[in-house]
Amino acid sequence: MTSILIVGAGAVGALFGSALARQGAQVSVVCRSDYDIVAREGYDITSPLLGNHRFYPHAVFKSVAECKTPPDYLILTTKVLEGVDRAALIRPAVGPRTVIVLIQNGVDIEAEIATAFPENEILSGLAIVGVGRSAPGMVNHQTMGQLNLGRYPNGASPAAERIAALLNGAGIGCKVTDNVVGARWQKAVWNATFNPISITGGMLDTAIMLGTPESTAFIQRAMEEVCAVAGAAGYPMHPKVIEQFIGGTKAMPPYHTSMALDYKYGRPMEIEAILGNTVRAARKHGVDTPILETLYAVTKMIEARIRADR
Amino acid sequence: MTSILIVGAGAVGALFGSALARQGAQVSVVCRSDYDIVAREGYDITSPLLGNHRFYPHAVFKSVAECKTPPDYLILTTKVLEGVDRAALIRPAVGPRTVIVLIQNGVDIEAEIATAFPENEILSGLAIVGVGRSAPGMVNHQTMGQLNLGRYPNGASPAAERIAALLNGAGIGCKVTDNVVGARWQKAVWNATFNPISITGGMLDTAIMLGTPESTAFIQRAMEEVCAVAGAAGYPMHPKVIEQFIGGTKAMPPYHTSMALDYKYGRPMEIEAILGNTVRAARKHGVDTPILETLYAVTKMIEARIRADR
Repeated sequence: MTSILIVGAGAVGALFGSALARQGAQVSVVCRSDYDIVAREGYDITSPLLGNHRFYPHAVFKSVAECKTPPDYLILTTKVLEGVDRAALIRPAVGPRTVIVLIQNGVDIEAEIATAFPENEILSGLAIVGVGRSAPGMVNHQTMGQLNLGRYPNGASPAAERIAALLNGAGIGCKVTDNVVGARWQKAVWNATFNPISITGGMLDTAIMLGTPESTAFIQRAMEEVCAVAGAAGYPMHPKVIEQFIGGTKAMPPYHTSMALDYKYGRPMEIEAILGNTVRAARKHGVDTPILETLYAVTKMIEARIRADR
Repeated sequence: MTSILIVGAGAVGALFGSALARQGAQVSVVCRSDYDIVAREGYDITSPLLGNHRFYPHAVFKSVAECKTPPDYLILTTKVLEGVDRAALIRPAVGPRTVIVLIQNGVDIEAEIATAFPENEILSGLAIVGVGRSAPGMVNHQTMGQLNLGRYPNGASPAAERIAALLNGAGIGCKVTDNVVGARWQKAVWNATFNPISITGGMLDTAIMLGTPESTAFIQRAMEEVCAVAGAAGYPMHPKVIEQFIGGTKAMPPYHTSMALDYKYGRPMEIEAILGNTVRAARKHGVDTPILETLYAVTKMIEARIRADR
């Protein structure tokens, strides 16, 4: 039986964990903030894909160190935040054959883990899913539900195929890619632009950000900068990617980015993982990204203001 | 006797108007929002320079058209806002020999008036004064109190010297310059950077904006862009201007920019006069200003969001 430990099991982790358990995996979770209720009652999940149900993990741990047997897979679903040492966080449960799966936002987020665990296989995953925590232990899955998964830094992976088979079997679309870093860069074209822009001046939704030809042209220029960085890093983007992202966003009802929601609710924002790492890659490869640099400078000031206000 | 009409007599107009009246000028005002109380009771002014006193204008008008005799000087102290036709506003009171004095923020704000009144002398003025309206008809002058005044587009002006003599006589320092456009560009180095940055992500004060070496370096690069535009427009800045502005700002207690206060209180912001005109001058002269363009795009989105929230 495949054993899986989900670390930082919030909404995304609980949803995928439940799907994996349904296909027969032995799924345990490390869950700090909602520990009491999850240990007692499991997760209460509403989902159009999995149905409304309760998910009882095999074991519920308050910390990683409580997991005494290294799992076959350790899935990390925490936010990627400045000052949080993810390698130290997971180390107590990583055995020599544990496959480490990062289902997290941002670009260039894998190297830190790969360096810390040079012998372990690293899988990198991009979740495309609208799911949130509506109350302690309650997971509200609203739309979509897909995972793009691949071996870091690239290549085929039977371990990824096994996870994909389980998820697909449960009704969650999971695609295995041999170019997951390229997939991260593609996602960054949207994420590293709309997210930081959305938190300037209070919260800006997608309709405001694409509200005029001038603002749309500005977003396009920002996206061109991300594409230039991706290309310099060895992951050239398809020429139509910007057009498709902007067209796709315009076609949706106005909505708030994940960073705007974090901003609104006073939660930590993934500025470094999403934008800071993009800017650092640009500097490393000598790509001029004045729009992204401006957004980075301003969003760091916003973070400083929030810290000062506390 | 010198007749003066102050149009848009808020805090700045009332303070300067009172000083001019004290030196014997016949000062009338056009005052829309506080008309009733000012017509009845004049202005209640507290000021370290002029003392605490009441200022009774020669006449108080509700609109410019009510002023039937063109004044020697028409001083315009309104904000410069998109969609407000300043030439149409003042036209009813402008006679063939009326000197038009613009005491307003921004760069490139004179051409519109000079074009509309090609026969009239235009004076352009920069107020350096900490003064606000604390209640209807009440003017609270806190710090500083200086006016830099000059003929537009340049050159000597006996008319400016007369105004300066009156203000200096009343204790308000007034310097006449033959390069007032250059003075406006110099002020824009501060204004077109700190002001728009300060309204991103809620309100950022000067301590946050200059809080780290990275944020300070960012402000410097933004200021360098304004200096490059000024130079291309024919007004080269002194090489030390950026250093002096940043040093001077750091030496002050943390404070909020005028645009941040407008943002906080839901008042119209002078984004076009201060930043938009700078960006348009850059485009006209072929100067690349990606930081200013980014700030301009973002602040226009903020304006759109505020409009949408109403």
